[in-house]
Amino acid sequence: MNIRQTLAATLAVVTLNLVAIKAEEPIGTVVFQSDFGLSDGAVSAMWGVAHEIDQELFLANLSHDVPPYNIWVAAYFLSQTANYWPAGTVFVSVVDPGVGTKRKSVVLKTKTGHYFVTPDNGTLTLVGDQLGVEEVREINEAVNRRKDSTKSYTFHGRDVYAYTGAKLASKSITFEEVGPSLGETIFKLDYTEASLKSEELNGNVDIIDFRYGNIWTNIDRDLFMKMKPKFGDVFEVTFSQDSKTIYKAEIPYMATFGDVPEGEPLIYLNSLIRLSFALNQDSFEKVNNIGYGAGWKVSLKKK
Amino acid sequence: MNIRQTLAATLAVVTLNLVAIKAEEPIGTVVFQSDFGLSDGAVSAMWGVAHEIDQELFLANLSHDVPPYNIWVAAYFLSQTANYWPAGTVFVSVVDPGVGTKRKSVVLKTKTGHYFVTPDNGTLTLVGDQLGVEEVREINEAVNRRKDSTKSYTFHGRDVYAYTGAKLASKSITFEEVGPSLGETIFKLDYTEASLKSEELNGNVDIIDFRYGNIWTNIDRDLFMKMKPKFGDVFEVTFSQDSKTIYKAEIPYMATFGDVPEGEPLIYLNSLIRLSFALNQDSFEKVNNIGYGAGWKVSLKKK
Amino acid sequence: MNIRQTLAATLAVVTLNLVAIKAEEPIGTVVFQSDFGLSDGAVSAMWGVAHEIDQELFLANLSHDVPPYNIWVAAYFLSQTANYWPAGTVFVSVVDPGVGTKRKSVVLKTKTGHYFVTPDNGTLTLVGDQLGVEEVREINEAVNRRKDSTKSYTFHGRDVYAYTGAKLASKSITFEEVGPSLGETIFKLDYTEASLKSEELNGNVDIIDFRYGNIWTNIDRDLFMKMKPKFGDVFEVTFSQDSKTIYKAEIPYMATFGDVPEGEPLIYLNSLIRLSFALNQDSFEKVNNIGYGAGWKVSLKKK
Repeated sequence: MNIRQTLAATLAVVTLNLVAIKAEEPIGTVVFQSDFGLSDGAVSAMWGVAHEIDQELFLANLSHDVPPYNIWVAAYFLSQTANYWPAGTVFVSVVDPGVGTKRKSVVLKTKTGHYFVTPDNGTLTLVGDQLGVEEVREINEAVNRRKDSTKSYTFHGRDVYAYTGAKLASKSITFEEVGPSLGETIFKLDYTEASLKSEELNGNVDIIDFRYGNIWTNIDRDLFMKMKPKFGDVFEVTFSQDSKTIYKAEIPYMATFGDVPEGEPLIYLNSLIRLSFALNQDSFEKVNNIGYGAGWKVSLKKK
Repeated sequence: MNIRQTLAATLAVVTLNLVAIKAEEPIGTVVFQSDFGLSDGAVSAMWGVAHEIDQELFLANLSHDVPPYNIWVAAYFLSQTANYWPAGTVFVSVVDPGVGTKRKSVVLKTKTGHYFVTPDNGTLTLVGDQLGVEEVREINEAVNRRKDSTKSYTFHGRDVYAYTGAKLASKSITFEEVGPSLGETIFKLDYTEASLKSEELNGNVDIIDFRYGNIWTNIDRDLFMKMKPKFGDVFEVTFSQDSKTIYKAEIPYMATFGDVPEGEPLIYLNSLIRLSFALNQDSFEKVNNIGYGAGWKVSLKKK
Repeated sequence: MNIRQTLAATLAVVTLNLVAIKAEEPIGTVVFQSDFGLSDGAVSAMWGVAHEIDQELFLANLSHDVPPYNIWVAAYFLSQTANYWPAGTVFVSVVDPGVGTKRKSVVLKTKTGHYFVTPDNGTLTLVGDQLGVEEVREINEAVNRRKDSTKSYTFHGRDVYAYTGAKLASKSITFEEVGPSLGETIFKLDYTEASLKSEELNGNVDIIDFRYGNIWTNIDRDLFMKMKPKFGDVFEVTFSQDSKTIYKAEIPYMATFGDVPEGEPLIYLNSLIRLSFALNQDSFEKVNNIGYGAGWKVSLKKK
């Protein structure tokens, strides 16, 4: 090989390296959620495992204050935030009341290109519906698990979920290498999708604004407006849990809390522009014992 | 073109690329602050928006536990920390009791080269005074706003502030492209700067150390020492809120809490070496109903 | 120099640069822990100092909710997590009841290649024992300190520990440049290592699961199994604090809480597969006034 050939060969290598360095971007993102809190070392151990797999990964937190074992809230927080992160982002969500039981460990790929690594216990309910299920795969824990996770004890959040999420985000494994396909099947909580049929509006109680005890539903302004409500209109409202009526009353739709006497209920649109319920100067939740999550349904009819 | 020329041309491209890769650093930093708490998905949504704009950005949090709507504390936390971050850092601070009103959305560039993206509601008071106002620009929300933020609902923290902050930090827009200049005008809270005039020392109550109920002011040791205080010296102390006297008493300057009887007040220098007030074994704040923030002034005269 | 020689020389430079860019990775990691909480600006100031030293550093948090001044918990959280982070990770832990006293500021390098920057007040007790002490160096604060940290006031967490940790992680200084070697000497809290001698099992109360008041020890399953326990076996259990007996009773080893009557004690294996103590439907901690940390010892003998 003469000098020219040597130079040409070296240049080729250099150029390939350059292309490789540039092509490495973006290098992958993992967003963590759990009910562990941030007060001890559990979340940091998950971050460490991910960081050890690829030190270039971008790591971030969603909430770690999901109420213990509350799968609905895990599902709700994911649905609130996932779509603001770029396609390709891998969410690792560990709210797992069934650890040790036979719920499956899965990765969901949505039609938007986001990934969710989680026990398949209902956590995927809302992102499945909102972002669309492309495919679900069951994690093959025989290969997708920390090397030295002991036989006697596995912390799934760290040893399986953080590990698999980081492997996937860093492209150390493909989505196919997660494990066998489950098609489009995810375990879904039985909540009430917002709908308007024969003049009856139905929806789910998504969450309670606990500072004030106001009830927030999944019924958005556009759907509500189809009933052509005017301020002052009165509605027959029913809250039920698992089909059992918990509360029934006539409530006006009002612009501000002060439009009803103290202690009286009103319907209003909250900061997310969704249908909500409050008592003026009191807690609708506490006074009427209303809860939230799948199973908590609200129905409205115009009087 | 012969081989030599080809090689030379390729080398030039390779070298330019190398220079470009190296020159890309630093890639920009965004530090977030709010009164949202970290328990739900609001902060994570802001991070996602910034990360989608440029996945190379370094993202970090200041505090998200600013008491709800407390602009003074937002201003205070920024002033405590901003200068420890490198020039060029973009702070996004969202404490916004006036959302929906006509407070302006602005970006402040300080003389130190730090940027602050925030509603102009007083949040900039202290960093303006301490780091110096270079120029303020009003955010042109017609262009500096998330593409698919809906007409019916805008979450300003996410859709305008995080978005604009990330655009600026990633150099996708210049400071000029933020929007029209407001010169050096920022909205400032009316607090009391520390000063010594005709033997009277005046200052502001910056914050309360809530664990113990001790009162912390903005009067530093150097200024206090100009009064040549000795341990045991007694001062006439007045606390006032918006010029109304709340508390007036004679208090000694002491080295340690135990130098006064239980329940008695003393003046001391706190861990930030600033003038502070305490009761031995009790809460100065609760016993004397002292608050903090702009409007809360302290005055001292030597007896 | 002819063209060939020029090309060859340029290529050499390009290649060296490429190698340098690639070799720069990994660029260093700093993990922060403290008892400051995340509500104010203290942790963010530490991050800012580290980020200013090298904007490529990966920064993360362990816990900032260590109970105020609780060195044992600082030590425990480090031991829970450090080994999940890659070798080379620099931990900065600031729980410092002795600030202003003559405890040393040190950096520990463990045999696993992890670094710990901290006051040498017992924080290193457990990682020292578990990861092995390679060498300890005392921080030379004359050089390893923020340039403009004032003479009148030093916030050690920010001005010395975060600063030195970031310098070390970014390879701006070598381990040797931290300061003079202290050999393998660290200050250790006097806790009880788990051991089985002459049929007596001894261990330390590491932490309490405060949600339920259950007592968690450092005795792992393997050691306990050497006593060949069967469910239903009864043990003589003694808890002592600094050699003073606090509690003594006979307690059965059971599979589940419901295997004993309400209010009665049992021995069980917790989620970390370590020996633990609980009351069925009550708080073992509160009913029996058990604490945790160095000095809190448990002893068991089979009846």
